[in-house]
Amino acid sequence: MLLLQDTMQKIKGPNYSLAQEVQKRLDNLTKPQGSLGRLEEIAKQIVVVTGNLRPQLKNKVIFTMAADHGVVTEGVSAFPKEVTPQMVYNFIRGGAAINVLARHVGAKVIIVDMGVAVDLDKHPELIVKKIGYGTKNMTEGPAMSKEEAVASIEAGIEVFEAEYGKGIDIIGVGDMGIGNTTSSAAIASILTGRSVEEITGRGTGLDDVGLSKKIAVIKKALKVNAPQPDDGLDILAKVGGFEIGGLAGVILAAVARKVPVVIDGFISTAAALIAYTLKPDVKEYTIAAHCSQEKGHRLMLAHMGLRPLLDLNMRLGEGTGAALGMSIVEASVKILAEMATFESAAVSKKG
Amino acid sequence: MLLLQDTMQKIKGPNYSLAQEVQKRLDNLTKPQGSLGRLEEIAKQIVVVTGNLRPQLKNKVIFTMAADHGVVTEGVSAFPKEVTPQMVYNFIRGGAAINVLARHVGAKVIIVDMGVAVDLDKHPELIVKKIGYGTKNMTEGPAMSKEEAVASIEAGIEVFEAEYGKGIDIIGVGDMGIGNTTSSAAIASILTGRSVEEITGRGTGLDDVGLSKKIAVIKKALKVNAPQPDDGLDILAKVGGFEIGGLAGVILAAVARKVPVVIDGFISTAAALIAYTLKPDVKEYTIAAHCSQEKGHRLMLAHMGLRPLLDLNMRLGEGTGAALGMSIVEASVKILAEMATFESAAVSKKG
Repeated sequence: MLLLQDTMQKIKGPNYSLAQEVQKRLDNLTKPQGSLGRLEEIAKQIVVVTGNLRPQLKNKVIFTMAADHGVVTEGVSAFPKEVTPQMVYNFIRGGAAINVLARHVGAKVIIVDMGVAVDLDKHPELIVKKIGYGTKNMTEGPAMSKEEAVASIEAGIEVFEAEYGKGIDIIGVGDMGIGNTTSSAAIASILTGRSVEEITGRGTGLDDVGLSKKIAVIKKALKVNAPQPDDGLDILAKVGGFEIGGLAGVILAAVARKVPVVIDGFISTAAALIAYTLKPDVKEYTIAAHCSQEKGHRLMLAHMGLRPLLDLNMRLGEGTGAALGMSIVEASVKILAEMATFESAAVSKKG
Repeated sequence: MLLLQDTMQKIKGPNYSLAQEVQKRLDNLTKPQGSLGRLEEIAKQIVVVTGNLRPQLKNKVIFTMAADHGVVTEGVSAFPKEVTPQMVYNFIRGGAAINVLARHVGAKVIIVDMGVAVDLDKHPELIVKKIGYGTKNMTEGPAMSKEEAVASIEAGIEVFEAEYGKGIDIIGVGDMGIGNTTSSAAIASILTGRSVEEITGRGTGLDDVGLSKKIAVIKKALKVNAPQPDDGLDILAKVGGFEIGGLAGVILAAVARKVPVVIDGFISTAAALIAYTLKPDVKEYTIAAHCSQEKGHRLMLAHMGLRPLLDLNMRLGEGTGAALGMSIVEASVKILAEMATFESAAVSKKG
């Protein structure tokens, strides 16, 4: 608990005193004022959260965390749970979508076993922070103990800190875990106050019968556990997952270091909601990469006051949307650093 | 006229016989079917238009064409017309937004003087295809002669062909020209059948009075010239611009070579509309990078049946949106080329 408390204590709000100066710079660049739209807004956000007037986002790191979910025994996923470890090996070999998109944008992927249900082969590119062999079935009681919830967040903090020493300018967060849209929908329903029906989607591809069953399972889990809507740790323990806790830890650790966070889809946003509940300042440091096709994601983003950069009907997770979003964020700070001003380029201003 | 006719004759529809095979490949990649959303759609489009099952989009080229507009004497722009040549020099020195964003995505920028009102200093990075020293004031008669309209399109074809020899896998198109949202709004109003009020926006930043004047000017130009709604050359001549004709030529030339085209904002979409009117197959080869904040752009895209990839409230032109869009298109074909299949990665399929 001490590491989590320490990390939360280090979190401060952005340095808004820089807002005016960065706005002045943006308005002096050779373009009509405001004509780069959200690129300008994002550049401003990066300046105030990093406290740096010329931020560079060279070191881009995506944390993709994997774990299993006891609730899959209820038949809530279109894919078997063996897919969780199989996909971790796919990440390690570089053949998954997140690997392709991370290479495309020049980001590094850190793969973490937060609680896959089997022991994975050792590999230098796999970080093992296993809190357990998957969570318990949340329809029968808490998915994990309060101690495990704290341990998962603290493991995420440790993973971030170990990587931070090698250089991180911006992070993305992503997930892998068969069953984790079920857990995330439960978290989202409690924290946004929206009904389970409004939030719950088809995950990796449920049909109508499967979707109805998934909704019933989530309702049962919420009834059995009655998580406290204002207590992020209680929610994480009762209906969360080890990878969700780990990602919440990564997010808190990044924010404590003034590193901007690009969130991905449904699951990583559930993790961000947990982190936000624990420390509301998290919101100012967070950029929503895209709006997932998974139902409810838009409501989760709206609850945090976040507007997604991309809307490409993606619903894969892993950090895939975050990878594409990071590249747009990087573009925004290059605008700030590399564009000529009206003066330097001898371009006439608005008449 | 011969070069234009030849180019149009070379244009063929996409090779839809490849659609099934690329879909099969996409469905075998290690992800839930369809979960990469629009990335998968775009990958499919690139396959059928290039006729290549494993297309590579390594050589990305953005054509940014500049010209002046006689209609600026009517007071339709917030910036003075001196800005057109000043910005061309800014492009050459690499200090404009398009330079920054093109570098970010690894694209080359080709800068073309299609009809800037002054003679520009010679520079190895500036291609001069000047059709005239700006168009005539379209409120008093045609902006250019029919011969100039053809010449501007053919100049665009020549510029593309010269660059094609060095290797082009995908192009973006962008513009610079004080007054060119006025010309583009006139083109868009005729071709979409929408009212001038629905189409016309604030360009580089007009106030309400300026916007009313701009609308009146466009209405006058349309009344004086009465362009034929089904005749792209007539429209280009009467209310177009030299850079718009040049970009239409670049687009036609690219399509004739089966090279996908990423369009940018309001002006480059007007050019695409001209090319589309001349040869409807153009549409299948075209990808809309983003939806500009300039009013009417969404209607223009809808008229061609195009859905923008990005919605970042941008309204700068130059090809800036196209640069960001090209990177997403490139990501889509990397998915196709680099992701593992369920078989190759030994990942279980949907249960």
